[in-house]
Amino acid sequence: MTFDYAARRERLAGLLPAHEVQALLVTSPENVRYLTGLASSNAAVLVRADGSALLATDNRYIDVARALDVPAVEAADVAGALAGVLEGPGTGIEAASMSVATYRRLGEGLVPLGPVVEVLRAVKDDAELALLRTACELTDQAFADVSQRIAPGMTERDLARLLDNRMTELGADKPAFDTIVAAGENGAIPHHAPTGRELRAGDLVTMDFGARYHGYHADMTRTVCLGPPAAWQRELYDLVVAAQRAGRHALAPGVPAGDVDAAARSVIAEAGHGEHFRHGLGHGVGLQIHEEPFLGPSRTGRLEDRVPITVEPGVYLPGRGGVRIEDTLVTREGGPELFTKTTKELLVL
Amino acid sequence: MTFDYAARRERLAGLLPAHEVQALLVTSPENVRYLTGLASSNAAVLVRADGSALLATDNRYIDVARALDVPAVEAADVAGALAGVLEGPGTGIEAASMSVATYRRLGEGLVPLGPVVEVLRAVKDDAELALLRTACELTDQAFADVSQRIAPGMTERDLARLLDNRMTELGADKPAFDTIVAAGENGAIPHHAPTGRELRAGDLVTMDFGARYHGYHADMTRTVCLGPPAAWQRELYDLVVAAQRAGRHALAPGVPAGDVDAAARSVIAEAGHGEHFRHGLGHGVGLQIHEEPFLGPSRTGRLEDRVPITVEPGVYLPGRGGVRIEDTLVTREGGPELFTKTTKELLVL
Repeated sequence: MTFDYAARRERLAGLLPAHEVQALLVTSPENVRYLTGLASSNAAVLVRADGSALLATDNRYIDVARALDVPAVEAADVAGALAGVLEGPGTGIEAASMSVATYRRLGEGLVPLGPVVEVLRAVKDDAELALLRTACELTDQAFADVSQRIAPGMTERDLARLLDNRMTELGADKPAFDTIVAAGENGAIPHHAPTGRELRAGDLVTMDFGARYHGYHADMTRTVCLGPPAAWQRELYDLVVAAQRAGRHALAPGVPAGDVDAAARSVIAEAGHGEHFRHGLGHGVGLQIHEEPFLGPSRTGRLEDRVPITVEPGVYLPGRGGVRIEDTLVTREGGPELFTKTTKELLVL
Repeated sequence: MTFDYAARRERLAGLLPAHEVQALLVTSPENVRYLTGLASSNAAVLVRADGSALLATDNRYIDVARALDVPAVEAADVAGALAGVLEGPGTGIEAASMSVATYRRLGEGLVPLGPVVEVLRAVKDDAELALLRTACELTDQAFADVSQRIAPGMTERDLARLLDNRMTELGADKPAFDTIVAAGENGAIPHHAPTGRELRAGDLVTMDFGARYHGYHADMTRTVCLGPPAAWQRELYDLVVAAQRAGRHALAPGVPAGDVDAAARSVIAEAGHGEHFRHGLGHGVGLQIHEEPFLGPSRTGRLEDRVPITVEPGVYLPGRGGVRIEDTLVTREGGPELFTKTTKELLVL
């Protein structure tokens, strides 16, 4: 799977005049990877308005960098090395990723910019979608394999480990993020870190996990029930299914991000649980697990075509438990394409 | 295992006058965790010169935060929420972790500071050392278990997965960083990412990995040989063993970091391989896998007592292969304590 990095840099170069800069100093690791192919924790690339570029990385990565289609210089202080070659005023920096310390060290004349490469990255090409599709397939398969082994007595940590191990066995780079397993009352904590709490009959158990494949991040959540659900558990589950369906159906190119959030949120609010769903509805996925665009009540941008995004409403009842259902989908003219295909019927294990 | 977070905040408060600030806005996730116990990707804590503090985090973590011994406010923009309560001028910020975007949003009057909490964190207390000791034990045990399974035909990725899975099975939170497995010629790349390259008889195979346990990061590297080593492989291995021993023996409270680096580097340089060892000798470990202090040729600070640190010289021969040997140790009066105890004899598998 290869990408046309030069074409990406050309597209970026075309955006620079609108930001009134003649070059952009790119320091976000994912943006450097997107523009050059170099995956490094210490690298930067300067992209000029004519599409030319200069890459900097340290001795650990320089040999890999020199095999790419961009000239590369070796430096420990990568941003400093590139700042030294800036021609004249009007070089943009990535204000969200550059530290205050680096900014002050580089000196005056830099123009802090908001998301530029991130906006390019939101819309994926076929090669990217193919990698993300595979990441989602690995996620589905790991769930299918591991769900058969879920049983009372196993701890949250045991279950998280089984999911993580299975994803990497199947070919994932690694888990896309720290896997969440939340049993019973812990399900009321949206970002619960797995503990030694044992799974018990009667628990709702929420698993939020995903595979990373060639740098691309899948994200899926399912809540299952150990033994037959109580009436309140079934009711909560059906509510979240309905909200998640409403959110998925609202996904379309041209729709404001806030409208998608509202479509799902209103279902939960009308059932009287508005206060029990306090996080945003979803987020873009790609080279980062959380990236542009974001779905939330105050988000105003409109969705584009070919944007992978999650839809993940949840209802959390403090002290009792919670349900969250999440898929990764891709916006398409004519309706979103579902990438995570695990059933959303309530699994009773 | 509990920590006295209030005492840590008191120690921090005692440092503020020397930095000419009356409060520090702490935004580094590890520093927030160190000062409050909250492990979150979106949290900040304001610590005042009188030792009082205010924590901010978003709706995902606020319930956990409210159970801690610091008052907590819920906010999505955590730094912004705390900036709103600043009294008068003279509030420091962490220039290495705060983004330019956040800094500009918070407005004037903030004082960018270098490492402050990081300096406190470098010296560990008994509870921290106990966690790190366990992290290193898990690392040793995973190596002992997996090394018996290393065989030709297995890929670098297979071997990395075995190590990762074994560490989490044994009780690690997760791998402390992306495990490196580099076989044959790939061993010449210090930060090689595991590929589908199969291990073959005659390969030197370098494994750089570690367990994270309750947030504390172990780090160990061993190079093994598949089948009897060639003369050049044995010679290279013995050289790195000697350099690593010299580095370990130089570790002591009061010694300049540059001297430790020089002790190991001079052994390699005298053998004519100076140009084949281009990275620093080591780094502190703790809540981060790379933290203060750093061992390198230009490092001037002196080591203190009770500082966990790695010693990891390597020699890398482009196109042929490499050897790196790394331990995690703790500085002590009377000689360093070795935390990773796997043999440094050349394992021939």
